[in-house]
Amino acid sequence: MKLVVGVLNITAGGKRIAIIDDETAGLLGVHSSDRIKLSYKGKEIIALANVATDFSPDRVWLYSEISQALGVTGGETVEVQLAPMPESLGHVRAKLRGERLRAPELTTIVKDVVEQHLSDIEISGFLTALKIYGLSMSETEAMSRAMVETGKSLNFGKAPILDKHSIGGIPGDKTSILVVPIVAAAGYTIPKTSSRAITSPAGTADRVETLCPVNLAMDEIQEVVKKTNGCLVWGGALELAPADDLFIRVEYPLGIDPLLLPSIMSKKKAIGATHLVIDIPTGSGAKIKTPTEAYTLASDFVHLGEHLGINVQCALTFGDQPLGCGIGPALETREALSTLMGEGPADVHDKAVSLAGMLFEMVGAKNGRKKAEEILRSGKAECKLRQIIEAQGGNPNVKPEDIPVGPEKAEVRATQKGRVLWIKTDGIVQVARAAGAPKEKGAGIVLKAKLGEAVAKGAVLFEIYAERSSNLASALELAEQLEPVVLSKKVEERMLLGQFPAKTTREKPFMLER
Amino acid sequence: MKLVVGVLNITAGGKRIAIIDDETAGLLGVHSSDRIKLSYKGKEIIALANVATDFSPDRVWLYSEISQALGVTGGETVEVQLAPMPESLGHVRAKLRGERLRAPELTTIVKDVVEQHLSDIEISGFLTALKIYGLSMSETEAMSRAMVETGKSLNFGKAPILDKHSIGGIPGDKTSILVVPIVAAAGYTIPKTSSRAITSPAGTADRVETLCPVNLAMDEIQEVVKKTNGCLVWGGALELAPADDLFIRVEYPLGIDPLLLPSIMSKKKAIGATHLVIDIPTGSGAKIKTPTEAYTLASDFVHLGEHLGINVQCALTFGDQPLGCGIGPALETREALSTLMGEGPADVHDKAVSLAGMLFEMVGAKNGRKKAEEILRSGKAECKLRQIIEAQGGNPNVKPEDIPVGPEKAEVRATQKGRVLWIKTDGIVQVARAAGAPKEKGAGIVLKAKLGEAVAKGAVLFEIYAERSSNLASALELAEQLEPVVLSKKVEERMLLGQFPAKTTREKPFMLER
Repeated sequence: MKLVVGVLNITAGGKRIAIIDDETAGLLGVHSSDRIKLSYKGKEIIALANVATDFSPDRVWLYSEISQALGVTGGETVEVQLAPMPESLGHVRAKLRGERLRAPELTTIVKDVVEQHLSDIEISGFLTALKIYGLSMSETEAMSRAMVETGKSLNFGKAPILDKHSIGGIPGDKTSILVVPIVAAAGYTIPKTSSRAITSPAGTADRVETLCPVNLAMDEIQEVVKKTNGCLVWGGALELAPADDLFIRVEYPLGIDPLLLPSIMSKKKAIGATHLVIDIPTGSGAKIKTPTEAYTLASDFVHLGEHLGINVQCALTFGDQPLGCGIGPALETREALSTLMGEGPADVHDKAVSLAGMLFEMVGAKNGRKKAEEILRSGKAECKLRQIIEAQGGNPNVKPEDIPVGPEKAEVRATQKGRVLWIKTDGIVQVARAAGAPKEKGAGIVLKAKLGEAVAKGAVLFEIYAERSSNLASALELAEQLEPVVLSKKVEERMLLGQFPAKTTREKPFMLER
Repeated sequence: MKLVVGVLNITAGGKRIAIIDDETAGLLGVHSSDRIKLSYKGKEIIALANVATDFSPDRVWLYSEISQALGVTGGETVEVQLAPMPESLGHVRAKLRGERLRAPELTTIVKDVVEQHLSDIEISGFLTALKIYGLSMSETEAMSRAMVETGKSLNFGKAPILDKHSIGGIPGDKTSILVVPIVAAAGYTIPKTSSRAITSPAGTADRVETLCPVNLAMDEIQEVVKKTNGCLVWGGALELAPADDLFIRVEYPLGIDPLLLPSIMSKKKAIGATHLVIDIPTGSGAKIKTPTEAYTLASDFVHLGEHLGINVQCALTFGDQPLGCGIGPALETREALSTLMGEGPADVHDKAVSLAGMLFEMVGAKNGRKKAEEILRSGKAECKLRQIIEAQGGNPNVKPEDIPVGPEKAEVRATQKGRVLWIKTDGIVQVARAAGAPKEKGAGIVLKAKLGEAVAKGAVLFEIYAERSSNLASALELAEQLEPVVLSKKVEERMLLGQFPAKTTREKPFMLER
């Protein structure tokens, strides 16, 4: 059928969508979410049909993605017909019926996700079925490989390539900023790509961005790693596993993450990692609550690593409170830099040398932790971070206090004398985000008392930093409501741990960093 | 945050969607699929946020649904903020975890589906989880009631209200056009609403539309039923269970129908049915292949009926070939009318009096089939149909040959002498649709030989009717490819029943009529 093109000068978020009238759809035998083939001057393109009522029956409206790909600007006549169902949708339906899929079938699905041939409805059905039925190890491997194949890869032309990843969940976890320079200073290659915060007050990319640019292109990363052995860059725009972003977009509202393992491991495979330490913070304040859960997850990571040719070790780390004291991009980076200079909190220091030490032992060192400790104490790690900052385009001579933090500041004080019984991770995250983190890099929290510490009545429990007074006010209000730092003289004095239904209305989706 | 409105003069299919820039989204703490609250001059509206890149950061773009509801035309400044997650999404997530939901929770979900507060992603996840976990009877009842509550209802102020439904799948099934006047002629109330074809060559609404208007409003239906005891109208625009259309739109691409039972039964409840016969065509050519499957489904219908206060009986009917000879809206209506006039095929006659007879016995008759037979033979049923046609605005004196059929016609002939061994239902459907049915009402097929009949070489197996020569050519080509009428002298001569992979590329979704 010949239809006249109307162009919508907006994008559909990469999706290839064409809108047709319901009468026209009827004549073509097309239902909403069916595919139509558009042909114009020898070009052919498949689009998802959105069927609208009371529309012009002789027209097809195209979002920018399609009109650009087809080379039309409006007014042209194009041939439109019902396109066959994509093969991948047959495989999606098989998964809905509970069938195990083979590698080529999963690859077809991932390719069609990346090329935007599957609709939100279809991707959501697929992911829900994966979540409910679970993935076999061979499916997990196939999904990981398909996600690598449909993306770009980095190749440094040497081995080993070391890497470190955290599944996240502990506010203030700035460990990567220390591990990368310790490992690089020892002469190993560690090209660290990281993410921005989704639900936390800071991701590693947000933190490092207060020191230097992190949005580097592939060739720039090669250059930085060649010069310094390491890098600390944002992985988001590198298209290492572009399917992942498309899956996450659908998983987020559903609060599920069936592709957690492929998501993390595909990106490690894409940067050519051969040895990888995965940090799994474990504890009441963390995403993983018990060692049993942590070991199950760890075992899956190690097993998948074997299938993908990556030597994986997992670190179960203390997850009952935030790491260090600073929370929020700038405050965390200040603390990381101080720790490299020998002055930071003990837990930040300990976690960094422990994880770096594990990596050293994986590539042959006898006492990895001691080796990491020496590199840190010697100042070589600090020196290495400054090289990386310079190579990425930042100021290598930056001092912690040069990193700007929010000018608006408030203190939250203890209303009684006591001991810190509990720090509610979730409350800390919400207050820091209300203060403006991670978008406003100077916003956040500095903890002045941590678990077990004695506190006098009126003493400062934590400080809130913000870039705008309105945000500071919201954060303070929330802090009063949530009381994230819980004091007690004796445990028994504070029997009410929470309240249900909760006072805050927004349910936070549970998503591991990936 | 204050943003300037841009208006997109297109609809989003009823969905409440607002587009914001990713920078703006970051400041608001909004992710794609999160909800935002738009406030303007005391009005507040919740919209699903679509996050776009490279957009104007101070703007929010609104589809027509939202801009109209908010009373803006573009250029106004509105207050935009992150809205809390709807309660229903929490219940959807619980279902994804496999939890059983209670009636109030399911009602909340159905309400939010109808009010367009849940996204395609979320509805798809919900339906996929329902499909995989299955619904308990109390969930099925709750979904049915919620679908009734969120729609309109008909109340005729009397009882009993009789009804008849077919789960479909047999081409040429024009039984309702006979059952309704038989039952109404006996003095019972039978307000039949029906659907248009989705994947078949004709739905009852498509058929009846060749006799009279079917798109009646609620008050017009009341009037017709008051006059004649019955009606034959299209249920699609009555909003009897508007949630159903929204669910079907998502189920269709996934090829699943977890809500089949609530979908059918909610519409029966909404028209106030007290006694219902459900036709389940069973056989190799039908959707339900074996009596075991049919009895399982039948048992579910009866059980759900008990919960909803509807007396249900199911009829398992012969489903190995099309019903009667005419297939396609006009050809089927001709045949139905002829049968009421005493001249139609035996199978159409038999099925109609059998189903009508079951209804009569449900409301107390001794020999229902005989009663139906008498009403049909006496001409009272024909007379009643003519009353209904007139009441709905058609010509009561219409003769079968007055109903126009496609002027383009071709015959498909036997290439050998033989006996009809098999009629491929699916092939018949595809050829009839290729000829233009159901959109072109005069298009379709007339079978000239049915199961078991002896056929001479060169005899006509079936005729194809079309309104356009191009469609006739496509249908003929498909008929040659599919050979829907299979002949054999002896069974052994035709050993190859099918070929895999199939020659046709389009996989048909399996959807029961509802």
